[in-house]
Amino acid sequence: MNFQFDDATKLKASSDREFSAKVYDGWDIGGNANGGYLLALVAGALCKATGRSLPIALSCHYLAPVNDADVSIETQVVKTGKSFTTATATMRQGERVIVMASGTCGDGFPGGTVSYATRDMPVLPAFADAVPRSTTTPGLPGLMSKVDVRLHPDDTGFATGNPNGSALVRGWCAFRDGRPVDPLALTLFCDALPPAMFNLSGAPGWVPTVHLSFYLRGIPSGGPVVTEFRTNHLHDGFFEEDGLLWDTNGALLAQSRQLALLPR
Amino acid sequence: MNFQFDDATKLKASSDREFSAKVYDGWDIGGNANGGYLLALVAGALCKATGRSLPIALSCHYLAPVNDADVSIETQVVKTGKSFTTATATMRQGERVIVMASGTCGDGFPGGTVSYATRDMPVLPAFADAVPRSTTTPGLPGLMSKVDVRLHPDDTGFATGNPNGSALVRGWCAFRDGRPVDPLALTLFCDALPPAMFNLSGAPGWVPTVHLSFYLRGIPSGGPVVTEFRTNHLHDGFFEEDGLLWDTNGALLAQSRQLALLPR
Repeated sequence: MNFQFDDATKLKASSDREFSAKVYDGWDIGGNANGGYLLALVAGALCKATGRSLPIALSCHYLAPVNDADVSIETQVVKTGKSFTTATATMRQGERVIVMASGTCGDGFPGGTVSYATRDMPVLPAFADAVPRSTTTPGLPGLMSKVDVRLHPDDTGFATGNPNGSALVRGWCAFRDGRPVDPLALTLFCDALPPAMFNLSGAPGWVPTVHLSFYLRGIPSGGPVVTEFRTNHLHDGFFEEDGLLWDTNGALLAQSRQLALLPR
Repeated sequence: MNFQFDDATKLKASSDREFSAKVYDGWDIGGNANGGYLLALVAGALCKATGRSLPIALSCHYLAPVNDADVSIETQVVKTGKSFTTATATMRQGERVIVMASGTCGDGFPGGTVSYATRDMPVLPAFADAVPRSTTTPGLPGLMSKVDVRLHPDDTGFATGNPNGSALVRGWCAFRDGRPVDPLALTLFCDALPPAMFNLSGAPGWVPTVHLSFYLRGIPSGGPVVTEFRTNHLHDGFFEEDGLLWDTNGALLAQSRQLALLPR
């Protein structure tokens, strides 16, 4: 079966280190390609360039918006190690730099029996019972036509003018066309929910991401994932947003952190 | 006055985008230059290359250990914007890549009156009353001869074989020679405390950092800073460590996050 995410993240090698790709319309938030979608594109390029299957630790600076456009992704392998390989990936539309990314990729985790966790997966209503994002903001186009985001009912106040004052948004993420969730999907899902700070005083519109980091912490089983996004510190026009993505069995799959700008 | 940190982070321009520097001995942990010290070196290069004064958002992949060595730092400006400029910086010892960094630098914060915080500065004993790191592990060389780290007494159990089982380490950081704390010092201090996970089951020795991100969130007043490092998720040989650095007035100065390897 042809899944939309696979089509939208297809890379064509134009040399051993350069790829061409298309940033498709329909994966956008209000007309700009979603940051997680762009991360998935460069993560794919980083894995191909390094010859590794897993994007373990990614860094992405967002430098210009883009949508519905042909882009190039130039990669450079910086270090090849025994377990990990590190590379850079720069996405350009013509001469314009869209994102500057780097990543350490691998084929597995180091392994080990020691484990420790201070935080459990949040308790959400069942996927079928959570609040579809598409109903909270009717007519919401783009990314929500591809990703089925279902929110915790307590976290939807931003959409009705009743933000609860807590910068927390929890919800499910799955592909609408049933594509199984894999590590690359997590790079998309880590930026697919409405910003947690929308629940402080309502949605201020476009909040541009300056930088995002992504750490893969587990291999998804394939089903919908539970996500939790939280802002702990907003001041001087900046806020961070920390994301946790979980498998339904409670295993942590990924962590993300972004620094974003609050429009004045 | 000549401060040691300024000497140890001196950059000599060998072209408009390449610098030479020396990684000095004495800023190491057990013979390897500390990750925060290397971050300070590349942060300085990123600021010089971008012509900006503040390292706002940094990403650093640690690729090989180094100590007491001449290095080169090659930079490349990727995007110059109105408020921020983004560049890469690669530190090499000869042909060997030591760190691959990128950073968005600026000359100030976006500004804005909205603020929100869920977490307060931890309460520590006064600087004079906290536990000097140098007394917790006698003979500890290197970085601790330059940075005066003073720990919360509850968080020192790792040093005496009595870890309290909570992956949390809090403490003060200041320069021993009285150098005022500035944004560059924060890049050093974000990796200057013993790993929080030492308090789980004791110090396993060298825990290599794979990736570190640093966000500058405030301008230090110059005095000692309060720091707090926490690991929330350790499994499969990886753990993250989140750091918060505060001014004594309770203002958040910086956030760090790193992904590190637990030796088997």
